Amino acid sequence: MEKKEPAYAELESENNHLDKNKPYPLEGLLVVDLTRVLSGPTCARMLADGGARVIHVERKGKGDDTRSMGPYVEDGSSEYFRLANTGKESIALDFHDPEDFALLNRMIAKADIVVENFRPGVMKRLGIAPEDLCKKYPRLIVASISGFGQYGPMSSEPAYDTIVQAMSGIMDATGEPNGKATRVGTSISDIVAGMIAYAGIATALYAREHTGHGTTVDVAMLDATLSLMSQDLMTTLGEHKVPHRIGNRHPDIYPFDTFQCKDAPLAICCGNDHLWSVLSKALGHEEWANDPRFLTNDLREQNWREVKEAMESVLKTGTAKSWHKKIEEAGVPVGLVLNVDETRRLPQVIERGMVKTMSDGQEVMGTPMKYSYWNSYGVQKDAPAYNENDQSIRQEFA
Amino acid sequence: MEKKEPAYAELESENNHLDKNKPYPLEGLLVVDLTRVLSGPTCARMLADGGARVIHVERKGKGDDTRSMGPYVEDGSSEYFRLANTGKESIALDFHDPEDFALLNRMIAKADIVVENFRPGVMKRLGIAPEDLCKKYPRLIVASISGFGQYGPMSSEPAYDTIVQAMSGIMDATGEPNGKATRVGTSISDIVAGMIAYAGIATALYAREHTGHGTTVDVAMLDATLSLMSQDLMTTLGEHKVPHRIGNRHPDIYPFDTFQCKDAPLAICCGNDHLWSVLSKALGHEEWANDPRFLTNDLREQNWREVKEAMESVLKTGTAKSWHKKIEEAGVPVGLVLNVDETRRLPQVIERGMVKTMSDGQEVMGTPMKYSYWNSYGVQKDAPAYNENDQSIRQEFA
Repeated sequence: MEKKEPAYAELESENNHLDKNKPYPLEGLLVVDLTRVLSGPTCARMLADGGARVIHVERKGKGDDTRSMGPYVEDGSSEYFRLANTGKESIALDFHDPEDFALLNRMIAKADIVVENFRPGVMKRLGIAPEDLCKKYPRLIVASISGFGQYGPMSSEPAYDTIVQAMSGIMDATGEPNGKATRVGTSISDIVAGMIAYAGIATALYAREHTGHGTTVDVAMLDATLSLMSQDLMTTLGEHKVPHRIGNRHPDIYPFDTFQCKDAPLAICCGNDHLWSVLSKALGHEEWANDPRFLTNDLREQNWREVKEAMESVLKTGTAKSWHKKIEEAGVPVGLVLNVDETRRLPQVIERGMVKTMSDGQEVMGTPMKYSYWNSYGVQKDAPAYNENDQSIRQEFA
Repeated sequence: MEKKEPAYAELESENNHLDKNKPYPLEGLLVVDLTRVLSGPTCARMLADGGARVIHVERKGKGDDTRSMGPYVEDGSSEYFRLANTGKESIALDFHDPEDFALLNRMIAKADIVVENFRPGVMKRLGIAPEDLCKKYPRLIVASISGFGQYGPMSSEPAYDTIVQAMSGIMDATGEPNGKATRVGTSISDIVAGMIAYAGIATALYAREHTGHGTTVDVAMLDATLSLMSQDLMTTLGEHKVPHRIGNRHPDIYPFDTFQCKDAPLAICCGNDHLWSVLSKALGHEEWANDPRFLTNDLREQNWREVKEAMESVLKTGTAKSWHKKIEEAGVPVGLVLNVDETRRLPQVIERGMVKTMSDGQEVMGTPMKYSYWNSYGVQKDAPAYNENDQSIRQEFA
């Protein structure tokens, strides 16, 4: 049975935290977006959410690869393309057609920012190497996203999210010790690289205001993913030990893990002895607080299998929701394990505008940067049809 | 047996991509860092890597919680603290001591940026609510990181990384379909929230240059983590379907998965029919390219279990390293599943400066934003000792 859809648009209009009329922090900036698929478009969509004008340049003929990738909405348009390109303009260019290439160069000449995620070397072969563009246009910021970066022995190797996840250590760190290395269930290396590229561009924009200097920004998916691995890096850099994956539990605190109830798992996080005694009581086993095996965090950590077994023997008598309520009321940090369909329906997520309704009635993801002074709603316009702005752009940059 | 350490410091000095003498993009900015543990310190460390001066304000007595969390290096100092606080200054303050509180306010009065990750409401109780600070100092940028954000029905609930991962959908999306929801093996919700807060601050810095206006920046770990879930969001927003986890494989392309060799897994990504025929040949089974079960991507996707079984029956005859070499030489995208100890030793990672040596000889993570014009090495100074800069800061802000 399909669940009823939340009335996102209606709830939005009543939410003064999402005032659509506030000024945008990046208003007036022009972005030439030469990216495809996920990492680059994510970066450029963040620029659009900040109020920059983003022209998504697509390959003449087929357009962005994601236009022919699902999932699709009822009208046949790709939700994949929509999520990564909402609020942008679209023009289709053939870089090998001299007229189109000249137009591209006229667009770049007026741009503040160029974003690209070709394989390193492609921009150079096209005659628009990032460093050359920065020489020609000293205020220009050119951001490049690639698997391994623009230089170094691996720079030209092909990279997909799965390969970068494998090489970054995040896959090895995820999963049960006796299970297998597990891919994070989203294209984390693509998306985090897009976020880091955005952060680099915003930094360069600020610095340009002071000095007049543009710059290239070179972001590698591998570097960005490795930046997420600070905990395993502590182990290997600080202790020179090889980190090992430990499932869902915390390395030093217990109980701080997921626990199986009758129907579903529940995340419970007991940071200290006091919370442990509160939790013991909530689970109907006050005596655990004085059990010599569980007295201190060190003991609970040492005997974590026994703690988990004891807790699950009780938790399995009720549903995750009923236990969630009891444990939350007791004041112990606890969370249901939700799927994204449930997450996007949380009143908190709706009130934060993390799902928003575009001009065509389709829903997309909101922006996680909530400012008091600046617009925190993000783009209001739908994703463009293929080559939608061909005429107006050709006229403007004639 | 402990592996030999790479000569990071030596390799660094020969690497002109990491020129330490280049100007820093955030030079001249003063950051008052009121954060603890991971999400907030990560954000402030990124500001330090950009060249901002960051004063890490610690709790009088115990200091930052991570000072007493492992892992520890030989001299007993915490590598956890070091990784998140390298390059900062430290002063220990008691906010309830009128003199210390007055000093804090004098520091804020001169600051460009304040970062905090208290539970929402704490800053207000202390008398330094973010919105009040912005009213008093119109150019000030105050970034707050919390589990669920500064407003909304859940804003005051306690949140740890594990709980936010559970509620964001990322845990449900990670793991095998018949296995259990799996925590990402790093504190992804903390770290991504720190990155998004940095991105918001950099955006606000740029916008301030034009308008003179500061702003609050309110970042929720839940919003930031949900921003990583674009693929599952496509499914639920575009098709109104509940997404299901599918292990390590790609939802629409096959083979695009991890495969077990004799000793370890290998990530192999075949994006099209041509690469499939190349891979088949490399695995010694040219006939697979014409096998009616495997002819097109749609068929391979439909029969993915048979593809995987066929491939693994061959891959299990050799080591992951030997197969990696063969498959790479054939031109098919392929990657070893590495742990972070192996990742940090990759020549590519070293050449990108993703591990760097601080003034005290300890190694920390580098910065993933590589600029041509600006310093891309990041901070060069070690993490501060507890209250290391007490005297000089008290004098300066007297």
